[in-house]
Amino acid sequence: MTRNGADALVEALVAAGVDTCFANPGTTEMHLLAALGRHPGMHTHLCVFEGVASGAADGYARMTGKPAATLLHLGPGFANAMANLHNAKKANSAVVNIVGEHATYHLELDAPLTADIEGMAETVSDVVATLESADEVSAATNHALAEIAGPSARVATLVLPNDVAWSPTDVAGEPVAPAPALEFDAQAVARAARTLSEGGSGVALLLGAPFVTARMASLADAIQKKTGCRLFAESAVSRMERGGDTPPLPRVPFHVDPATEALAEVWAAVLVGARAPVAFFAYPGRRSELLPKGCETIAVSPLLADAEKALEALAAALEAKPEPHRPTLVAPADRSAVITPETLAATVAHALPEQAIVVDESITNGGFLYAYCGDAGRHDWINNRGGSIGYSTPVAVGAAVACPDRRVLTITGDGSALYTLQSLWSMARDQLDITVLILANRSYKILANEMSKIGAGNPGEREAPLLSLDHPEPQWTQLAQGFGVSAERATTVAELDAALRGAFSSSGPRLIEVVM
Amino acid sequence: MTRNGADALVEALVAAGVDTCFANPGTTEMHLLAALGRHPGMHTHLCVFEGVASGAADGYARMTGKPAATLLHLGPGFANAMANLHNAKKANSAVVNIVGEHATYHLELDAPLTADIEGMAETVSDVVATLESADEVSAATNHALAEIAGPSARVATLVLPNDVAWSPTDVAGEPVAPAPALEFDAQAVARAARTLSEGGSGVALLLGAPFVTARMASLADAIQKKTGCRLFAESAVSRMERGGDTPPLPRVPFHVDPATEALAEVWAAVLVGARAPVAFFAYPGRRSELLPKGCETIAVSPLLADAEKALEALAAALEAKPEPHRPTLVAPADRSAVITPETLAATVAHALPEQAIVVDESITNGGFLYAYCGDAGRHDWINNRGGSIGYSTPVAVGAAVACPDRRVLTITGDGSALYTLQSLWSMARDQLDITVLILANRSYKILANEMSKIGAGNPGEREAPLLSLDHPEPQWTQLAQGFGVSAERATTVAELDAALRGAFSSSGPRLIEVVM
Repeated sequence: MTRNGADALVEALVAAGVDTCFANPGTTEMHLLAALGRHPGMHTHLCVFEGVASGAADGYARMTGKPAATLLHLGPGFANAMANLHNAKKANSAVVNIVGEHATYHLELDAPLTADIEGMAETVSDVVATLESADEVSAATNHALAEIAGPSARVATLVLPNDVAWSPTDVAGEPVAPAPALEFDAQAVARAARTLSEGGSGVALLLGAPFVTARMASLADAIQKKTGCRLFAESAVSRMERGGDTPPLPRVPFHVDPATEALAEVWAAVLVGARAPVAFFAYPGRRSELLPKGCETIAVSPLLADAEKALEALAAALEAKPEPHRPTLVAPADRSAVITPETLAATVAHALPEQAIVVDESITNGGFLYAYCGDAGRHDWINNRGGSIGYSTPVAVGAAVACPDRRVLTITGDGSALYTLQSLWSMARDQLDITVLILANRSYKILANEMSKIGAGNPGEREAPLLSLDHPEPQWTQLAQGFGVSAERATTVAELDAALRGAFSSSGPRLIEVVM
Repeated sequence: MTRNGADALVEALVAAGVDTCFANPGTTEMHLLAALGRHPGMHTHLCVFEGVASGAADGYARMTGKPAATLLHLGPGFANAMANLHNAKKANSAVVNIVGEHATYHLELDAPLTADIEGMAETVSDVVATLESADEVSAATNHALAEIAGPSARVATLVLPNDVAWSPTDVAGEPVAPAPALEFDAQAVARAARTLSEGGSGVALLLGAPFVTARMASLADAIQKKTGCRLFAESAVSRMERGGDTPPLPRVPFHVDPATEALAEVWAAVLVGARAPVAFFAYPGRRSELLPKGCETIAVSPLLADAEKALEALAAALEAKPEPHRPTLVAPADRSAVITPETLAATVAHALPEQAIVVDESITNGGFLYAYCGDAGRHDWINNRGGSIGYSTPVAVGAAVACPDRRVLTITGDGSALYTLQSLWSMARDQLDITVLILANRSYKILANEMSKIGAGNPGEREAPLLSLDHPEPQWTQLAQGFGVSAERATTVAELDAALRGAFSSSGPRLIEVVM
């Protein structure tokens, strides 16, 4: 077998530590598929929709800290992956997309699937390269991988024309070292320490690094206790270690009014990895910036710097010493009760296994989950920084592939889960230990609330059906079983508790429809 | 209620005859939703995935010849619609996308859902406009609608920032007339007539207009009979009237080798709406152009001209007189037989009701359907000109909304149907008379064949699972029922025949999984 351009690409990926590819290939990717098969260092997982592949790559990257690959079919295949690539980019997850393209000489014929792949890729990628010849594949791939391993880029898209994939080459590019990690700002740390030590509750400490470690939470908690400042994590952190003896981190509320209220008395904000918080959407008569007008901001650590080091320095300057948190987890009192946002949270927190990975896409009914789970055992919490719904079940696939020894719990609304329900098939194919909680209120509940908040009135007779998922109500147990995932419904606390414990103690995926 | 930018947009749509919108809205579209509700001339259908909305708009446009609208949520919502917008654009279907954007002053804050909507839109649209103020909405919308009603553009994307939607305006733009339709080339017709009358079977007559009418088929058939030329429709025509006494039109074969062979003896090709045919993909050692080297081409009618008029002129020049076709439909002989591509075709053709609309997305197992149905009753046949799979069930939704008095049959592989299975929910929501035939071979069968044809060898132990849909096999009857669509399986000709007749004689959607 002669080495070809596809081999050169896969070799470069494997050499850079990329060992997992989530794939939905077509004819233009067959040489890539063969090359992936020839390199035992690469593990490939079939997805039956591209948005599952891109979300899974994101989840894998969040849990391993190293890039995952996708394999996508031409422009339309890339387009289907874009919503979750948007989320991956906003989450600062390193993902490398490999997109097959028509042979270079075929493009001018404008065959049916010909599309502007680069134009699409530019909108959701930091690095885009079309590999023009087999000899340049290795070097160009090395460069792209170095860029996304560095602090300035996260999503790379490599477009490989079919004739470049099948042409022989013996060229291997030189390894490329990524740019060094960004440093935190020592002067800003000193200024932040002064402000924190003098400002009390008028100062907010805001954590927003893509990965907030347990150590960061402990340091921040110590600083809060020492100075009396207000402490928040951003409302959506890509990955957060928490639970057990890790001090819980409150978050900036998701909704604009409580967020503005929580920050109303703040005159200075110390940003560790975080940006100054903004509203998800603009609303007439409300400010989009969540910090009060004139609030001073002190950025001690850029987004992709080592925020833990910055916090260590800040805590040292303030002589703040971390103390372990003492969790106080209480079982839900009334097991026959119907499931409300609060009993849901208590039940989940109580059943959550040690070292679980929680992928949270609940908004309307999930308001208490994060707080209650702060007193559960050690776990990771994953949130959506990009806001495009349909992220959680694909991200759960990638997290489970990355961490086969851990339990993954994904919690999502019924409206959100419909966008990428094909992820259920991937869970069944790879028998992943994922529990999917569908919070089923049979509506785009959040939108009914948003409609009046944004000044568009209340849904009338002609609008209401457009915000509802009834007629018909999706039957999640049937949908799950259709994809080979066992499923059940829970309508009381006792049923939910039993379903969760059953799911966590058996292997393979399980879906629980929570009727709310 | 003060008239706002959203009202101005909806008014312009309704005034231009756009009466149907397929919607998946979010917060930034709430003012548009309210405006859609205030205008009784507009009918809005909820879709639970954006790729369903864009495919449905395509299907509606194909069957009505007028534009349909989509309502999409910001960049990621648009991204989810793009694959089927690619198909709509390639099919020359007029679609106007309305995309909500953050308020203009909110964009610089880079909130989670901020994305490059225009950059995305440029890749699949002919016209892209961001409406910058409420006063300009009406005129800009009129211009965009005139462009897609003319012969040079088909897909328009209008981006409406939220504050533009909610700002008051009393400005109404002047109506804009679309550019006149393109004319056919009378000189080329004369030259084509000479070539056809002299060339016999060395000349091919190729039809490729987006809408091939029954009259066009009759005229082309008459020309073929008069001159002895070879006659083909393009392998994928957006919409074709056929069946009954309409003479059947053979098509250029889908696969490159039979297509090249079918055209091997041709030295001149007369193109009516069609382009010179090209291979779907490039293959090593094969030409991508399907006409032989040196073949002369005579284009008598550009793609969006009135191809029927061109054919009338050509037939008149050749004194070719249409004759009605005498269909010879034979029932499948052995009703206990298993379902093969051939018995499938015979069974479908025999059960097809008058005035059915067939949306075909079958390749591997559907090879005989088109030919057999040529002898069925009058029907329309819809094909995918863009090649992005997952097009047929959404297009069926739009076709059924457009033609509530007709039966829609969509025929698709199990792999293809998974991309946009959320269309089943829309079928159930609107109780559309759609029958979905899933040809279930539990694999991406076409790719296993393509892999060796493209020189990448046969699937080995590590590649084969990536081309297969077993472990688990999707259970289509459960998936359908989960979305509120009644469903059954058919494994013999008799079962399939009974299932089809049952579906065609009852109202609402039905899914039939055909085990092959």
